[in-house]
Amino acid sequence: MNPKAVILVTNDDGVYAPGVRALFEAVSSLGRAVLVAPERDNSAVSHSLTMNRPLQVKQLEDEIYTLDGTPTDCVTIGMRKILAKPPTLLVSGINPGSNLGDDISYSGTVSAAIEGTMYGVPSLAFSLGGDSPHNFTVAAGVAWKLASMALTFGLPPATLLNVNIPDLSAGAIKGIRFTVQGRRIYKDAIQETFDPWGRKHYWIGGGTVQWTGGSDTDEHAVRQGYISVTPIQLDLTNHSGLTFLENQWKM
Amino acid sequence: MNPKAVILVTNDDGVYAPGVRALFEAVSSLGRAVLVAPERDNSAVSHSLTMNRPLQVKQLEDEIYTLDGTPTDCVTIGMRKILAKPPTLLVSGINPGSNLGDDISYSGTVSAAIEGTMYGVPSLAFSLGGDSPHNFTVAAGVAWKLASMALTFGLPPATLLNVNIPDLSAGAIKGIRFTVQGRRIYKDAIQETFDPWGRKHYWIGGGTVQWTGGSDTDEHAVRQGYISVTPIQLDLTNHSGLTFLENQWKM
Repeated sequence: MNPKAVILVTNDDGVYAPGVRALFEAVSSLGRAVLVAPERDNSAVSHSLTMNRPLQVKQLEDEIYTLDGTPTDCVTIGMRKILAKPPTLLVSGINPGSNLGDDISYSGTVSAAIEGTMYGVPSLAFSLGGDSPHNFTVAAGVAWKLASMALTFGLPPATLLNVNIPDLSAGAIKGIRFTVQGRRIYKDAIQETFDPWGRKHYWIGGGTVQWTGGSDTDEHAVRQGYISVTPIQLDLTNHSGLTFLENQWKM
Repeated sequence: MNPKAVILVTNDDGVYAPGVRALFEAVSSLGRAVLVAPERDNSAVSHSLTMNRPLQVKQLEDEIYTLDGTPTDCVTIGMRKILAKPPTLLVSGINPGSNLGDDISYSGTVSAAIEGTMYGVPSLAFSLGGDSPHNFTVAAGVAWKLASMALTFGLPPATLLNVNIPDLSAGAIKGIRFTVQGRRIYKDAIQETFDPWGRKHYWIGGGTVQWTGGSDTDEHAVRQGYISVTPIQLDLTNHSGLTFLENQWKM
């Protein structure tokens, strides 16, 4: 344990979620761990910052706080009011269900790590594949190891790590792979249904998700039984796209 | 007008917002324009896809539809059920208020264009700077011009355009600049307040936003009176970060 390391722990499923409790316990051996997480499941309001009302912080236990806001609120208030200075490391998760490829743009777990990265804090997002009920024991061990590595070796600048862990026993996991973000192909997955008054509704979901990209993607690594670690940057600019526009667009 | 062009129009402020109506009217001269937008203001649930309940589509006028969901739902249902095939172009906005730099990760306006891009449709997000009440006349003219250019010259692959228009008269706008995403610096902007029972709350907001980056950024262009056009990519992987991890992290 590094007595000087301060680790902010958060998630988007709420402070009572077993995934975040497993993560909090795992990183507690690496420094002072402080958990600040939403009161309720916030999966649906992922990236938003609450600015139209004040937020109340409640302390639940020693080093465990909650507030009636979003994961982004928790990171902002956690860093600047509860800790009063940026922590050494931020960890988010463990999300029950993977956050792979293009889907990370919907992810509250990843958005908390984006917010940490904006503050210049090395940040990691952890997600565990498979279906409920999840057992977070193996994933918490992986989170401990990767958080420890991040403290020791650092992260690339302005970059977070999106970590996806396969839902396998410790012995069945083949290792760690550094990966690129995969691309999802949409398959038909909108079901038509009717309400009690005979009116048509659409229900998005189901179907089979398909992926493109080679053996270097996050999705491929997890499917093969590896832990996927993808470096994700804040700068979304397509720099080569600038050249395209300057050359092709005749103003 | 290209009689074969089909243009899907959406936003995150709701189908009755003046910004989306101005955009719809502007692009109607470029092809068949179809407006599919949320019933209500969805600024807070930006990226999410509704999968826990069915969605009802209502037709309000000729080529104007609404549904009780998010901007992402509107794009998905609009493309696949209302149009029954991907459109030639997607335009989102016009948002009252800019979407610059790191803040685009919170933006429902931009997320609708991300969703269009995932479907392979050239997509543009439009935002107008300044404060309410907004006059969308000049911005609608800019949107018409840029949508027309996108139809003629195309976009870089897997890339959307994030367009920010300064809140100026047509004569005062200096031109168009292709820009990179700026970086925001956080300034102290959490106010402490007390509820009627004397309990402390935090209110996020206010303060002065500061920006880093050079004269090539979106924020700088708008501040100088230019229309900012930033190419934004779907791939968030920091590819050079992979090399960092492979070389620095001793497993």
